[in-house]
Amino acid sequence: MDHLIEKTLSSKEIFKGRVIDLYVEEVELPNGKTSTREIVKHPGAVAVIAITPEDKILMVEQFRKPLGRTLVEIPAGKLEKGEQPDATARRELEEETGYTCKDLQPLISFYTSPGFADELVHLFIAENLEKLEIAADLDEDEFLDVMEVTLDEAQEMIQTKQIFDAKTAFAVQYLQLKKHFE
Amino acid sequence: MDHLIEKTLSSKEIFKGRVIDLYVEEVELPNGKTSTREIVKHPGAVAVIAITPEDKILMVEQFRKPLGRTLVEIPAGKLEKGEQPDATARRELEEETGYTCKDLQPLISFYTSPGFADELVHLFIAENLEKLEIAADLDEDEFLDVMEVTLDEAQEMIQTKQIFDAKTAFAVQYLQLKKHFE
Repeated sequence: MDHLIEKTLSSKEIFKGRVIDLYVEEVELPNGKTSTREIVKHPGAVAVIAITPEDKILMVEQFRKPLGRTLVEIPAGKLEKGEQPDATARRELEEETGYTCKDLQPLISFYTSPGFADELVHLFIAENLEKLEIAADLDEDEFLDVMEVTLDEAQEMIQTKQIFDAKTAFAVQYLQLKKHFE
Repeated sequence: MDHLIEKTLSSKEIFKGRVIDLYVEEVELPNGKTSTREIVKHPGAVAVIAITPEDKILMVEQFRKPLGRTLVEIPAGKLEKGEQPDATARRELEEETGYTCKDLQPLISFYTSPGFADELVHLFIAENLEKLEIAADLDEDEFLDVMEVTLDEAQEMIQTKQIFDAKTAFAVQYLQLKKHFE
């Protein structure tokens, strides 16, 4: 694999934001020529497949400004500085859905857009959910609706493009496979 | 869903790049307060699940500068201006793997990082592959190794984190489900 490596010749910070940073790097390609790479740095995120005692999947609907529309997604959120992914997963589940869980297991992690960003999403499965008596607070700039859907409904929502993001499509497929092998 | 909408108050272009553009927008939240959103604009991309006559999955290994490492991924690439996704899928398959296909079907499309980017990936399945006599040219700054792997090998590569991205993990799960229902 060493013959594929791109060496960094220079790195320029273009933007430091609340959520993401942007760098443009000049690289030396494997053939000795040079090119530039546009790189978004992201703190990483978690997403949670959460199954209620009634065997429903918890989903949240929220407005996604980059898309100019709402999406229905599994609960998810960014890692806070120094926070371990399992703590983020539990926090986001509690904040976004009003449920907590007894069992939380890591399933898989994946990069979402390796061509231009380093965002890594850690996917968890939460079981044995319990409703919180006092709901946790959402972030100040976060507004969402919680939904509880069956697996069949979730599959339908993929067809109608209400579910329209990679992590949630993966989660629905995961649950289809799980159901089939149980 | 209207009660979740964020209105754009202003939009500032921070960066216009070769691949991505970056904007910072001031928005009015559903409660009337204001916040900012950092938004990466991306031309969109395709990814192709391509199955050889020997029932192997075509994968490409390439260096991903944002991650500082190589990943094994299904063939994929950005939409050129004005290009339809199915044309991109066929082009990328030919350029990256040296195969073309008789059958190309759209499977699903999904946003990869709806929190900060508008990248939409169109996933296709390519069957009845044929080796090109004259390989198509890769982009000037693109270097990769082609691999042909079984479904079992692909599942193993997820465990060892050689496969470590959302679209490829989705593709492997899709093929597991497909195998099971056939």
